[in-house]
Amino acid sequence: MATVSVTELTAIDLRESLVSGETQIEPFVDQHWEFVADLDAQVNAFCSIDKEVVTAQASDLLAQRSRPQPLGSLYGVPIGIKDIIDTVDYPTAYGSAIHQGRYPVVDATIVRRLKHAGALIFGKTVTTEFATFVPGPTRNPHNLEHTPGGSSSGSAAAVASGMVPVAIGSQTNGSVIRPASYCGVYGFKPSFGVIPRTGMLAQSPSLDQVGVFARSIEDLALVTQVMSGDDGLDIGASRRSPQQLLDICRNEPPLAPKFCFVKTPWWNKVDPQAQQVYEDFVASNDSIVWAELPQVVEEAVRWHACINEAELLFSLQRELRQHPDGLSKALKDRLEQARSVTTIDYLLAKDRIPHVAAAFDEYFDYFDAILTPAALGTAPHSLESTGDPIMQTVWSMAHLPSLNLPLFRLDNGLPLGVQAVGKAHDDARLLRSARWLVNSIATES
Amino acid sequence: MATVSVTELTAIDLRESLVSGETQIEPFVDQHWEFVADLDAQVNAFCSIDKEVVTAQASDLLAQRSRPQPLGSLYGVPIGIKDIIDTVDYPTAYGSAIHQGRYPVVDATIVRRLKHAGALIFGKTVTTEFATFVPGPTRNPHNLEHTPGGSSSGSAAAVASGMVPVAIGSQTNGSVIRPASYCGVYGFKPSFGVIPRTGMLAQSPSLDQVGVFARSIEDLALVTQVMSGDDGLDIGASRRSPQQLLDICRNEPPLAPKFCFVKTPWWNKVDPQAQQVYEDFVASNDSIVWAELPQVVEEAVRWHACINEAELLFSLQRELRQHPDGLSKALKDRLEQARSVTTIDYLLAKDRIPHVAAAFDEYFDYFDAILTPAALGTAPHSLESTGDPIMQTVWSMAHLPSLNLPLFRLDNGLPLGVQAVGKAHDDARLLRSARWLVNSIATES
Repeated sequence: MATVSVTELTAIDLRESLVSGETQIEPFVDQHWEFVADLDAQVNAFCSIDKEVVTAQASDLLAQRSRPQPLGSLYGVPIGIKDIIDTVDYPTAYGSAIHQGRYPVVDATIVRRLKHAGALIFGKTVTTEFATFVPGPTRNPHNLEHTPGGSSSGSAAAVASGMVPVAIGSQTNGSVIRPASYCGVYGFKPSFGVIPRTGMLAQSPSLDQVGVFARSIEDLALVTQVMSGDDGLDIGASRRSPQQLLDICRNEPPLAPKFCFVKTPWWNKVDPQAQQVYEDFVASNDSIVWAELPQVVEEAVRWHACINEAELLFSLQRELRQHPDGLSKALKDRLEQARSVTTIDYLLAKDRIPHVAAAFDEYFDYFDAILTPAALGTAPHSLESTGDPIMQTVWSMAHLPSLNLPLFRLDNGLPLGVQAVGKAHDDARLLRSARWLVNSIATES
Repeated sequence: MATVSVTELTAIDLRESLVSGETQIEPFVDQHWEFVADLDAQVNAFCSIDKEVVTAQASDLLAQRSRPQPLGSLYGVPIGIKDIIDTVDYPTAYGSAIHQGRYPVVDATIVRRLKHAGALIFGKTVTTEFATFVPGPTRNPHNLEHTPGGSSSGSAAAVASGMVPVAIGSQTNGSVIRPASYCGVYGFKPSFGVIPRTGMLAQSPSLDQVGVFARSIEDLALVTQVMSGDDGLDIGASRRSPQQLLDICRNEPPLAPKFCFVKTPWWNKVDPQAQQVYEDFVASNDSIVWAELPQVVEEAVRWHACINEAELLFSLQRELRQHPDGLSKALKDRLEQARSVTTIDYLLAKDRIPHVAAAFDEYFDYFDAILTPAALGTAPHSLESTGDPIMQTVWSMAHLPSLNLPLFRLDNGLPLGVQAVGKAHDDARLLRSARWLVNSIATES
């Protein structure tokens, strides 16, 4: 019997190996459990993980083989779920002492869909406190003294360290793309509304977006597709039919994709070595030209803050009233400041979301994606902060799909990504174009 | 050739007479035009009305007779449209000098649906300034020195004076049921979300609701049904399938309906003669018992104000910035006060909408409708104010369907209604039960 380490396979390949019988689900899961248990003692990617829960799922998956239905598109694939997303198998504590041991009675819509596709819910991954700024215990697998980024800290680290091929996170500001860059994995935050959020912590409902970490763009496409589509319960869900992301992204683009790279107004905060890497990247790539962003992006950051602070205060008002001692001082201070946000400023800021998105429309007439730094540099040498989300703020605010492409490694040995941003609800084009770009670089080198 | 005065027929009967050929559309419209032109010189129900527009529609409707398609369910029925609802045939000015002569390039969804059903868009009816408190020129047809109520002043007066069998209005606070009571016509505000608002002034999007004025409950049911159903464009639209209101409301109820009458916390503001009328009404009707409202209703009024003021300021911010001289002082003062509403209060207030609705759920386990005074009394003797909307505030805030039943006339010769409130999205039961109640009274007397 061949044994496969999940650390080496994409979700699609692992599923293929399990479906074909080359790998047997129960021994694989037993062996993989030991690997994770050892490694996570250092990385702390998981906050809830239980061998019985995992082996029970493996046993169910084995039983599925004797049923007439075809095996799911994620059959046997271990997946980590950010601990702000409800699961019936594990408690969901929002990274907060207040909610320790809270057992949801229903799976989040996306968890139910992942299970239905055959995924194995391996464990809950560490989030910062209520998916805000105060870090959990997770460390960067590339250097344990560095942050993995946040707020989807555990999801990024779990994929980066080979503990799962796929993990689910969320992004309200920069919580998927930044940790993906810091941890050197692919990360994808689809267009707002593509993935319903029913059963996920409402932190800032006008901005909260589900995201995915994986080892390949195809895996991102497949997993996103499995989770996509209006469930009739999330007021923010898009009513459009989900795109066939995997098929489309595997196709050759009809025309050679074109990209622009924008330094953004925050370029002078970017680490000098990272600046050089990005400069070289653009210079050596014929498909990429330099461009400038419209003026609106700096205002968009203020509008994002206005929406986020006000909605966060609303979302946490019960905790603030009933369990103030369970909140960090940093979060309480932030919530107190949010009390003064006036409704007119809030409604004006929310109203600008589609206008900010529209400011980029003409870019997508010429370019298949806008490229930017995925972060200001590699993961900071600190476990006290999860780094600066500024490179994501505008795209989160504008609800645009964005990707981290883990293309570089700097002299400190830490990874650095390129962020690729697509047109709203043209997620498939973004994935296809990015896959083409990554393949073209691999072919060259 | 028989001639029919629309002042005597319901929409359903008028349509029948026109479809059968008993009444011929073009002479009918010509004759009716003269009637309206004479009468409206005193009532001022219409702000835009044009003989050419009306006769062109009559001519189109005549041409429809030679086509193979069946004639619409509102074939030839003249309808007045509140001047906050976009029409391509008439300007839409929101009752504001700022927007005088604004010609929309698309019909509101509901106007398109009414036209498709064969309705004849007779004219635009007067609204208060931006559907708020500052009156337009409309007078109460029962006594020209009295207000018709507002903000749907023209729609109520146009139906009450026989100028149209049906008119469309809107209710954010008390703008359908109150003027219907003052003018002695049936009025209906369906559950929030039943009728899409695309192309209607967004005054306070969390509260704005389309309503209908008519001469019978069946007409309310038919016209509401024609306008109902998600158009995919109104974020507040309900995703439920529209109910078959007309068929259901024409049926006998499966059990004899039961009602409760609540005096509300505002009973001591109700005119003494009106109080006596309501007391007698309950005493003489076996299907009605007295009940009390839950404590939450007084808070609901505050929450309604918080949402309404904040959203109004947002909705009118362009006018306030660019055309402050075009706004009334009263409205400007109100908008200035709204600047201080904090987002946390606003979001908490909005969050309470479903909780307030739920506070009445148990009533609807026992009763088919909650009855209350439709207003504090008959139409005030003033053209400077449109009266007090307090009897509607809670139901508007809770998004519940409500009806005015024009049952009484006080010694001053002015009408007074009973308000019937139903369970959210059980509009059909409300209409059926109210029709049963009205018929039972008619049979008795």
